[in-house]
Amino acid sequence: MARIESDSMGNIEVAEDRYWGAQTERSLHNFDIGRNAFVWGRPMVRALGILKKAAAQANGELGELPQDVADLIVRAADEVIAGGLDDHFPLVVFQTGSGTQSNMNSNEVISNRAIELAGGEMGSKKPVHPNDHVNRGQSSNDTFPTAMHIAVVSELNSLLYPAIKHLRDVLDSKAKEYDDVVMVGRTHLQDATPVRLGQVFAGWVAQLDFALDGIRFADSRARDLAIGGTAVGTGLNAHPEFGALAAKRISEETGLEFRQADNLFAALSAHDSLVEVSGSLRVLAGALMKLANDVRWYASGPRNGIGELVIPENEPGSSIMPGKVNPTQSEALTMVVARVFGNDATVGFAGSQGNFQLNVFKPVMAHAVLESIRLLADGMRSFTDHCAVGIEPNHERIRANLDSNLMLVTALNRHIGYDKAAKIAKQAHKEGTSLKESAVANGVAAEDFDAWVIPADMTGK
Amino acid sequence: MARIESDSMGNIEVAEDRYWGAQTERSLHNFDIGRNAFVWGRPMVRALGILKKAAAQANGELGELPQDVADLIVRAADEVIAGGLDDHFPLVVFQTGSGTQSNMNSNEVISNRAIELAGGEMGSKKPVHPNDHVNRGQSSNDTFPTAMHIAVVSELNSLLYPAIKHLRDVLDSKAKEYDDVVMVGRTHLQDATPVRLGQVFAGWVAQLDFALDGIRFADSRARDLAIGGTAVGTGLNAHPEFGALAAKRISEETGLEFRQADNLFAALSAHDSLVEVSGSLRVLAGALMKLANDVRWYASGPRNGIGELVIPENEPGSSIMPGKVNPTQSEALTMVVARVFGNDATVGFAGSQGNFQLNVFKPVMAHAVLESIRLLADGMRSFTDHCAVGIEPNHERIRANLDSNLMLVTALNRHIGYDKAAKIAKQAHKEGTSLKESAVANGVAAEDFDAWVIPADMTGK
Amino acid sequence: MARIESDSMGNIEVAEDRYWGAQTERSLHNFDIGRNAFVWGRPMVRALGILKKAAAQANGELGELPQDVADLIVRAADEVIAGGLDDHFPLVVFQTGSGTQSNMNSNEVISNRAIELAGGEMGSKKPVHPNDHVNRGQSSNDTFPTAMHIAVVSELNSLLYPAIKHLRDVLDSKAKEYDDVVMVGRTHLQDATPVRLGQVFAGWVAQLDFALDGIRFADSRARDLAIGGTAVGTGLNAHPEFGALAAKRISEETGLEFRQADNLFAALSAHDSLVEVSGSLRVLAGALMKLANDVRWYASGPRNGIGELVIPENEPGSSIMPGKVNPTQSEALTMVVARVFGNDATVGFAGSQGNFQLNVFKPVMAHAVLESIRLLADGMRSFTDHCAVGIEPNHERIRANLDSNLMLVTALNRHIGYDKAAKIAKQAHKEGTSLKESAVANGVAAEDFDAWVIPADMTGK
Amino acid sequence: MARIESDSMGNIEVAEDRYWGAQTERSLHNFDIGRNAFVWGRPMVRALGILKKAAAQANGELGELPQDVADLIVRAADEVIAGGLDDHFPLVVFQTGSGTQSNMNSNEVISNRAIELAGGEMGSKKPVHPNDHVNRGQSSNDTFPTAMHIAVVSELNSLLYPAIKHLRDVLDSKAKEYDDVVMVGRTHLQDATPVRLGQVFAGWVAQLDFALDGIRFADSRARDLAIGGTAVGTGLNAHPEFGALAAKRISEETGLEFRQADNLFAALSAHDSLVEVSGSLRVLAGALMKLANDVRWYASGPRNGIGELVIPENEPGSSIMPGKVNPTQSEALTMVVARVFGNDATVGFAGSQGNFQLNVFKPVMAHAVLESIRLLADGMRSFTDHCAVGIEPNHERIRANLDSNLMLVTALNRHIGYDKAAKIAKQAHKEGTSLKESAVANGVAAEDFDAWVIPADMTGK
Repeated sequence: MARIESDSMGNIEVAEDRYWGAQTERSLHNFDIGRNAFVWGRPMVRALGILKKAAAQANGELGELPQDVADLIVRAADEVIAGGLDDHFPLVVFQTGSGTQSNMNSNEVISNRAIELAGGEMGSKKPVHPNDHVNRGQSSNDTFPTAMHIAVVSELNSLLYPAIKHLRDVLDSKAKEYDDVVMVGRTHLQDATPVRLGQVFAGWVAQLDFALDGIRFADSRARDLAIGGTAVGTGLNAHPEFGALAAKRISEETGLEFRQADNLFAALSAHDSLVEVSGSLRVLAGALMKLANDVRWYASGPRNGIGELVIPENEPGSSIMPGKVNPTQSEALTMVVARVFGNDATVGFAGSQGNFQLNVFKPVMAHAVLESIRLLADGMRSFTDHCAVGIEPNHERIRANLDSNLMLVTALNRHIGYDKAAKIAKQAHKEGTSLKESAVANGVAAEDFDAWVIPADMTGK
Repeated sequence: MARIESDSMGNIEVAEDRYWGAQTERSLHNFDIGRNAFVWGRPMVRALGILKKAAAQANGELGELPQDVADLIVRAADEVIAGGLDDHFPLVVFQTGSGTQSNMNSNEVISNRAIELAGGEMGSKKPVHPNDHVNRGQSSNDTFPTAMHIAVVSELNSLLYPAIKHLRDVLDSKAKEYDDVVMVGRTHLQDATPVRLGQVFAGWVAQLDFALDGIRFADSRARDLAIGGTAVGTGLNAHPEFGALAAKRISEETGLEFRQADNLFAALSAHDSLVEVSGSLRVLAGALMKLANDVRWYASGPRNGIGELVIPENEPGSSIMPGKVNPTQSEALTMVVARVFGNDATVGFAGSQGNFQLNVFKPVMAHAVLESIRLLADGMRSFTDHCAVGIEPNHERIRANLDSNLMLVTALNRHIGYDKAAKIAKQAHKEGTSLKESAVANGVAAEDFDAWVIPADMTGK
Repeated sequence: MARIESDSMGNIEVAEDRYWGAQTERSLHNFDIGRNAFVWGRPMVRALGILKKAAAQANGELGELPQDVADLIVRAADEVIAGGLDDHFPLVVFQTGSGTQSNMNSNEVISNRAIELAGGEMGSKKPVHPNDHVNRGQSSNDTFPTAMHIAVVSELNSLLYPAIKHLRDVLDSKAKEYDDVVMVGRTHLQDATPVRLGQVFAGWVAQLDFALDGIRFADSRARDLAIGGTAVGTGLNAHPEFGALAAKRISEETGLEFRQADNLFAALSAHDSLVEVSGSLRVLAGALMKLANDVRWYASGPRNGIGELVIPENEPGSSIMPGKVNPTQSEALTMVVARVFGNDATVGFAGSQGNFQLNVFKPVMAHAVLESIRLLADGMRSFTDHCAVGIEPNHERIRANLDSNLMLVTALNRHIGYDKAAKIAKQAHKEGTSLKESAVANGVAAEDFDAWVIPADMTGK
Repeated sequence: MARIESDSMGNIEVAEDRYWGAQTERSLHNFDIGRNAFVWGRPMVRALGILKKAAAQANGELGELPQDVADLIVRAADEVIAGGLDDHFPLVVFQTGSGTQSNMNSNEVISNRAIELAGGEMGSKKPVHPNDHVNRGQSSNDTFPTAMHIAVVSELNSLLYPAIKHLRDVLDSKAKEYDDVVMVGRTHLQDATPVRLGQVFAGWVAQLDFALDGIRFADSRARDLAIGGTAVGTGLNAHPEFGALAAKRISEETGLEFRQADNLFAALSAHDSLVEVSGSLRVLAGALMKLANDVRWYASGPRNGIGELVIPENEPGSSIMPGKVNPTQSEALTMVVARVFGNDATVGFAGSQGNFQLNVFKPVMAHAVLESIRLLADGMRSFTDHCAVGIEPNHERIRANLDSNLMLVTALNRHIGYDKAAKIAKQAHKEGTSLKESAVANGVAAEDFDAWVIPADMTGK
């Protein structure tokens, strides 16, 4: 069964059990693109609900909406926020580049649900009109980017930061636990002077902390909202205090401090803030690439690789080679990295393509940033729980490798000079002897060698 | 209710109504990454079904499997191909980098469904063992890339090519229809010598044809399959004729000509062929960017832009500005382009990261290429049906623009020389006069001007 | 004429008039890659000089070097800093991934020049040894990234920031100058409600300011130096206070505040800080793309485009179309943007590829970041001086466009409701009438129309 | 001393010893961007010379130019082709996006040099006018992309293909030389079933051959030239047979078969062909990444890595760790790869940004493609001559690794089934025993083990 909905283009049928209206229905017909994977999910729907609630509150307070209408909108928007109406947001990312149709989707659903709450007739636009009331003092051009920022900042705080913290804390505890494990250092993939396993873990932690600080900086700047700019940034048709007040209500709803942006023209016509967030996520992704690669190389083998770390066995590694266990969490995480790099390319490209008073790549930018956040969070959590927590040193292998390492020769530099030390190392390498044997053969006293070459002493404080 | 499934790591419970086995179940627990959007869909599940069917056929023919076992596998695989068992493929892209778990997913589902068909007990691995029978003569390392190629080539042929053809045919018919519409040419965004609208359409068509030829070339090279390489490319444990025969059966099943790759080591350790496919899709994306941008700029206005083309009005354009109609199909299509560029970055990056005998970024590469194909196909079809078919010239505007165009002066070059022609144009520009007025004022006879400056004659054959 | 130089691999001939030694000479032979364009220039050579000077000062103060040797090194390093020895730095970017050969190049040149100053014999390594003295307490692995940061931070401060400021100040003064010019707004490339030209300029300024703040943040984090980490991050063979003291001397030399990094393992094995800098430059590039595109579209025409801005005529625009003047500065600047996007891709990719204790993509990362800085600075300065300063409104065109703009209808929304306003606009559009005519025909009193629809009043405070 | 040159904007001084004219001089003043590294070099200057020569020949034959003027142009153009006038091409990449100024640079230099040859006065434009004669029947919009294609195709053929062939031939000879060296296979970085070293080399060769075929395909399509399209693709002001005839003369000059493009509108407004070339170069780059990474990992150690390959020692590896030799050629080559990836991003982005009848990112696209070709060619040649030719197996290490490899167990699958084989391998792994010991302990007869597990037999034909 269908009811009739209408917009400025005329009438259109909508299924009776759907809250959406004419513009949502038209978008369904006009944009059948990637429907398998690109329907907006929770983060954006929730953000639109938050925005519409805050806008109704602000308009009510400023006398722009009758209080009863504002209250009805708030009630319906609360349901959108809570997730109960997700099935009524069927649109995909690839639509109007301003997100107009998703903005209208939220206007229509809230309007019809509010009408229903008021006992009215859906589609009648009375007593709650999707444009005149729910979208009061707003345009897609300022609401959609506002919702983008709400969604991105919320996901960063609720999803990403805990996942980073979880991983860095596990690595940090390993850094402390294994701080006295001395092992071969490696530069250029070649044996080098020793390091402590704790230092290796601490290096990874430092990278994660650096990345997190960068993301937090970008986050702090994404708190600036376009709300109040309406169609072109001038705020036409909005109460002068509307934007700032709506931002305040959004802050209260989310528990995250948002502000109206200082320059609303830039906030509509460019999304440099999302490009910055994406760039900061790429830094994290790069750090995870290094981490995941290091872990799998340290765990390579079991017999014919480096083999100095042992990682959890979570599944059979091969459908043909029995007994083989693979660094699958590293593989999943590095594939996430490859995807995040791609998303970042999308965001940078799209962000550069604004014209005049509007950038019309909003949906694809929001989607890519949200996807990156989700994948990074999921990927890190998976890696932490199924790999990092179980990483252990293979003490036997570490010791054997360290003992055979010619680069301990560096400890001799200060005592016998670079050139002579080089000769000793090269001779040992060529003849297959130990470093000590070669040193003694080159005139270093054995007791001097033992006193000078103490791997743990070579690893700093 | 659950049954017990087992693998080389031991027992694990699986829901009774699921066909999958132990390794699929473990993957579900171990890889909870992007589950909202990254579960494999039809193209890869179908491709795995095709592969397993062909493998069973080949093994049966070569005496590597009892015929009754091979027949059971074929029956179950046919159901996978048809789509009836899609719900039994729950795994996500971000898993083992070789796709092992999805390969095992197909082995397990086919095994259990075959057992069921034979009246046996699911999980018993009798009479059809997931490894010894369904995966006979195979490894994830050769089956998964084989399925990747089957899926990509199939999607190119069934989805992308028709969508390109649909768009180019519509544009081509417009090229013919409007071949006599003379309009202002524009270079550097500046008025230039005239072109015919048919030439503009034909230029777009030429770009699409070029892109299609490039994709077909990449497609032809993606017909090389890794099958028969097993774990490291040597074909260990497979019948020597298995790969070639399986490729033949795959060709029969799909109606697309596949071959076993000449070098199976490269086919496992690199996926340069998919990088090439992705690169060829990027060429298409770039061409679509040009097309969609041109269309929206030509349609800009209605009054304060170029305004020479009229595009269909599909929806209200603004939630605040009534009467405004936006080039939304161009916007959706260019957002697809931005996404495809990002996917291409993912594929290029992932493709470069192989080590030794395996590249372990297989799933993320396959997913990104398949997503690009789907989005491009959907995006082009949407653009064609909701925009391109309805593009019409605004003859009045085109004529008015052409009449005021100073660059018709170029027609004078051959008659009065470049320097004098330049002077005439600059004077008209400065004084706001028509070109003819300025020419006459500079000594060109009016009748010569009329004879020399005929826009249509300036547009070539 | 040649002299003999030596290193741990033996003797090699070097041209007598060159200060470099054996390792530089070997690199010349071994890395003949991109010699046409990739020889290190001023920024890196200067940075290496600063580093070596500071290191000698620190080592002298800490008693790690005899004061006379330290002084000799300082004198020679001062010449490197000043640029007098640039011809003695012949190596290219594509060398050892740690920059070892460029580090040795600086060690060798400074050693030989210091020897010469001391009246010794070049190549003798006495009294100033390239490794034991100039490289004292250092490794390429910490010196090269230190020099990278010195170079990048210096170029940001001396080259980029002034160029950004120059551009934003010119645009800012235009924003003030043209704040009362009311013009058509444009969203989706379609006519929209009016804006003031000053607001357009101010939006561009806001983007530049945002970008600058982001770069400054990245800059502040790039002040952390790897110095003191030596080969693997442990600081082996360096005095414990060396790194911090050298950083202090570097700060004094440059007038920019640097610090030793907290975690030296991360500082050698990853260059996330440079990835961050590059990402922040990409934000700037994206903003410049928007700016340059807006300018050329606003200046499109002269007769058949938007034509609302006039830009300086700097050169003949076409070799065939006389009188044509093109937005060439926009073109050059957007080509810079395309290059910077590519450089950023290089940096992000390279930054992710570290292994264990070292990232061996240092040179290519440093080069790409420095190139981006230079190109952005040059490009902005060129754009400012040859285009932005001369931008002027075409008042006549702006007024004519504004008068014909149907989107002024938005001002009616608050008075007659969205649906009725939409009808008026659509009717005017269809019938080619003015908005006022259509409004009156739809029952709006003419005097109400005049009172309600005042473009300047629609542009906010 | 200076002479006066003029163009349509007026007079300007040019240094007397320079052949260029007014427009080149203006560009020097207006585009001071990246002058340190972005002055056009040989390939583009030569290509412009070839183009101008061919154009003069064609115009002469078609009666569009007096034969004596044509002959003078040919003589001057021959000097440009030969390189003698390179110093007279001072312009940089970042100029007008159509390359107009470089086109004019070639017109002016050839005109003045031809005037000089004729005994005339430079700057007089008599008897050879830069526009009316040298640029006869041409526009920058068709000549510059024509020169781009000539340069790119020439560099591919003269520089890149020989470098690929050199590398693949060296690797191919190694493949044959070491075809009987059986070694551990590795998948997921984990020990796997054996391969032969010859197979490893052959895999790399197959990747190079695949990449070369892709580049040749792109090359074949880049033979289509824009010549004859003049300003907007219509061929206005050119003789109808001019483009085809000029292409023929270009083919004769270069020895490479070029053609006039079928669709000249696409040839001016898009450069999809260069995007395709760049994409094909990225495939090569990805293959080189794999190769260079494999080589350095196989050579990692010397004692604490894989250590199965030995690579040439070309220089001291570390300024602090004596005796350390690093895989520096791999490092340089992978840095080239990172750069090529970035260039490809630049090209793809720029290629998508055409508008109407022109893409104005021509110079940056041409430069990036030419840079990639040069770097890849140089990088491969360096890698081949300084690394690949000297790669040798470390037989002792290979044998020791192979002997300890548990994955030989796969050979047992066919004899005792997957599950039992898995148990044997896992037990050996856990207990640190050899595979044979574990097999015997699990009931396999020792003589069966020896007969079944023969590594060489596991590596295929």
